[in-house]
Amino acid sequence: MSEREGRQHARTEGRSRGGRSEMRARRSGSHGLGRPWARLENRYPTWDILSADQLEAIHDASLTLLETQGLEVLCDEALATYKAAGAEVDAATRMVRLDRDLVLGLVAKAPERFNVTPRNPDHRVEIGGRSIVFGGVSGPPNVSDTDRGRRPGTYEDQCNLIKLLGALNCIHSVSSAPVEAQDLPADTRHLDACYANIRYTDKVFLARGIGRQRIVDTIAMAAIARGQTPEQLDGDPAIMTVINVNSPRRVDVEMIAGLTEMVRCGQAPIVTPFTLMGAMTPVTMAGALAQQNAEALAVIAYTQILRPGAPVVYGGFTSNVDMKSGAPAFGTPEYAQAVIAGGQLARRYRLPYRSSNVNAANVVDAQAAYETQNALWACILGGANFIHHAGGWMEGGLVASFEKMILDAELLQQFAAFLTPMVIDDQTLALDAIREVGPGGHFFGVGHTLERYETAFYEPILSDWRNYESWKLAGAETATQRANATWKKILAEYEPPAIDPGVDEALKDYMARRKRAVLGKDAA
Amino acid sequence: MSEREGRQHARTEGRSRGGRSEMRARRSGSHGLGRPWARLENRYPTWDILSADQLEAIHDASLTLLETQGLEVLCDEALATYKAAGAEVDAATRMVRLDRDLVLGLVAKAPERFNVTPRNPDHRVEIGGRSIVFGGVSGPPNVSDTDRGRRPGTYEDQCNLIKLLGALNCIHSVSSAPVEAQDLPADTRHLDACYANIRYTDKVFLARGIGRQRIVDTIAMAAIARGQTPEQLDGDPAIMTVINVNSPRRVDVEMIAGLTEMVRCGQAPIVTPFTLMGAMTPVTMAGALAQQNAEALAVIAYTQILRPGAPVVYGGFTSNVDMKSGAPAFGTPEYAQAVIAGGQLARRYRLPYRSSNVNAANVVDAQAAYETQNALWACILGGANFIHHAGGWMEGGLVASFEKMILDAELLQQFAAFLTPMVIDDQTLALDAIREVGPGGHFFGVGHTLERYETAFYEPILSDWRNYESWKLAGAETATQRANATWKKILAEYEPPAIDPGVDEALKDYMARRKRAVLGKDAA
Repeated sequence: MSEREGRQHARTEGRSRGGRSEMRARRSGSHGLGRPWARLENRYPTWDILSADQLEAIHDASLTLLETQGLEVLCDEALATYKAAGAEVDAATRMVRLDRDLVLGLVAKAPERFNVTPRNPDHRVEIGGRSIVFGGVSGPPNVSDTDRGRRPGTYEDQCNLIKLLGALNCIHSVSSAPVEAQDLPADTRHLDACYANIRYTDKVFLARGIGRQRIVDTIAMAAIARGQTPEQLDGDPAIMTVINVNSPRRVDVEMIAGLTEMVRCGQAPIVTPFTLMGAMTPVTMAGALAQQNAEALAVIAYTQILRPGAPVVYGGFTSNVDMKSGAPAFGTPEYAQAVIAGGQLARRYRLPYRSSNVNAANVVDAQAAYETQNALWACILGGANFIHHAGGWMEGGLVASFEKMILDAELLQQFAAFLTPMVIDDQTLALDAIREVGPGGHFFGVGHTLERYETAFYEPILSDWRNYESWKLAGAETATQRANATWKKILAEYEPPAIDPGVDEALKDYMARRKRAVLGKDAA
Repeated sequence: MSEREGRQHARTEGRSRGGRSEMRARRSGSHGLGRPWARLENRYPTWDILSADQLEAIHDASLTLLETQGLEVLCDEALATYKAAGAEVDAATRMVRLDRDLVLGLVAKAPERFNVTPRNPDHRVEIGGRSIVFGGVSGPPNVSDTDRGRRPGTYEDQCNLIKLLGALNCIHSVSSAPVEAQDLPADTRHLDACYANIRYTDKVFLARGIGRQRIVDTIAMAAIARGQTPEQLDGDPAIMTVINVNSPRRVDVEMIAGLTEMVRCGQAPIVTPFTLMGAMTPVTMAGALAQQNAEALAVIAYTQILRPGAPVVYGGFTSNVDMKSGAPAFGTPEYAQAVIAGGQLARRYRLPYRSSNVNAANVVDAQAAYETQNALWACILGGANFIHHAGGWMEGGLVASFEKMILDAELLQQFAAFLTPMVIDDQTLALDAIREVGPGGHFFGVGHTLERYETAFYEPILSDWRNYESWKLAGAETATQRANATWKKILAEYEPPAIDPGVDEALKDYMARRKRAVLGKDAA
């Protein structure tokens, strides 16, 4: 039969899929939804969309930039560190210029890969090589769901999002905070976020990278969670943090302070220029990549001055803006090019690479989905080792969405399935089954199919493949509507991983002491 | 500033984008929306997700399949053709078995690339090599839009969809019919479809591949449109058609009749097995690919027996089914793997490759978008030269959707932008501009940006990047709602390309004669 006849036949023959009860939540692992939690590797070839000459041109230009223009570093101690290592430092302008051999020699000391280990060692992740780690959204000020709409984030929302991230097996790591808890004091809310990360998941989490104290607190709490001291975490990282360059070419004191503390404590910073084309970088892709590369290498070099061999990640956050409004655009063709090219650059220096799953949509609709897909495909093709904001990001980073979390989970699981290499052997080539079925026959009932069909294909948590009539009868729901029901079900059923009561007590104790110190004796 | 601060700053600073009037329809070309019509090439490296060994294993198994099991060909004339070329033919069972050297020797005669030329030679396309051609949806029985809902297709719907495909510059080719005109007699509606394709666009179109007569008619009308005779089209193809194998391993008489006519008239068939895993092929990917490969090669070999050097395309249509219902699933992880692996196979034989932009969603929502994106990314990565159903497909092929047409157009344009290689030179590396702006500065107002910003970035036709408040004030529309307004605007403003009145008359004349012949003297 022709394709069109076959499609019609297959669809109308398809039986109704039934209701919510059919959503076979594969509760593998102690508390998971979907495929079991597993480390993920990309075994497909890398993909280079920059030619070798183009790559060298960007590399060369970024080194020239560091030699002739340099970075502004707003911290005397860091300036001294650079200077002692051989950089040209102008104390008055606070400009640091670096000879290319110096930069490349330092960058070469960074490890190609390293582990990060949370309180449950089974959820250890590798950062670098061909490993892929999906991390949850980080830092939006607002939260959204389709019932209550968009609103400023609260601690309750934060905890709920963390629980979702904990429940979704496709998520390897949570961020410092999936939404800002705006109902908590700004100076201590990182403690509560850290507690929630530990209490409600046993996955890797991040520290917020602004300032030394937040890093100190997060390391302290991560150590307690692991039943260890901060010193024992040195060389056996428990946390990462995003350290942004204030592009163009400025490193703020809070960022360098956070970075310095991370490195001194043996934890892993993700050095990320913040390079929106036409705003913080030239409007051209080449200029943006050259500037990103220069900024990242210069700051990574700093980490290696402090501690040769310190684990560190090359981060990229390059996109275009909407030139009419100046607003960032994400998940665009330019974004995809920048992500993939950034991966080529990171590979050139044998550095682990961070990129992001980002979009600029205002609602969880087709645009959110296609921008997200552009970002995710680019991350995978670009060899990103750590994919930040992989679950829950909306609206250019201003919103964490509950429905988007489920949409993202569906896509992350699909990528895990796609990245599972095909098995080509006599069993799977199945020439005997083909003979058995014969020309014009059907494979539904043959032994080869019956033995395999239950686990043959990827099982979605969100996609609905019912025929139209069944789908309509069941309420004609969109994916976003289904996602709403799904996150509620997950939250209702979620059982956080157990935590040692002594550990829990010690964490609370630490928080209380720190809050009293920062906020005063009566702080909660 | 940190990423999160920067995002908030950039978004709230963004000015309102205003209303529909801002949708700068780039009316480049005589009647186009979006970027100008242009041939598209993929200059990035090919991507091989099957290892060399895996590819050989599939290749070898498919040849073994042809040698030991073969295909059933339900046409005595075709059986004789195969037999005369050296195949082993069993007249009683109508099974054809082919020695591998015979198959490969024949397949090697097919050209690596060829042109297809419509009535406007400026819209000639290349099929093969690194060229990419996006073709419109083909053959659903139903049509849908968000106002009138899902309904059986009519000729009016068909014409409207063709006009949209004509207007959208990202579309290179229309199909035989974007929806079935169910209000027209089944035996002659292909004439009306062909007329509409010619009347409302000057792009390449397809013939419906079932049976010899439809091919004869379509070639005749394509010749009239080009001001030529059918004989003059021989060797200078005007049309293509999809020829399906009735998988598993059966070639129907109508299909082989259509195929034979296409080849004898020097037009290009797209030989496509119809291989849904677990239904028409083994439930395993390896088995599906081996069977697809065997079927495609055997029928492509037939075309080369008929006419060595005849243009022909290797088509793939492999996906999985939803094992609970038996309904086809599209845009899945398995689909993506099959598309990319199929491309590797086609490349092995130096054949042009056809794949498809397909999904199984019931509504134009996030699922439709993400399944579509999986399919499109896979097609691009798989090196597909002809991407069938690229505009308008919904619901596993049962529906052509007006809103989906616009969504697809947005994505096709994005891919064209993504496939535009980056320019890396001194101008774009922009070290001078970086120096001019200085650390912590802003690139918005610098000369380098001002000279370029108007055309710097991809301009969407559907994506909305306004900040939340502006978007909400303007009606809080989803992408699908915007798409609804967009297709109506396009249709209202569309001016079909001019057609020579003599050509128009001749086409109508041909149709009238053929309808009288098929339907009787009083046929309209």
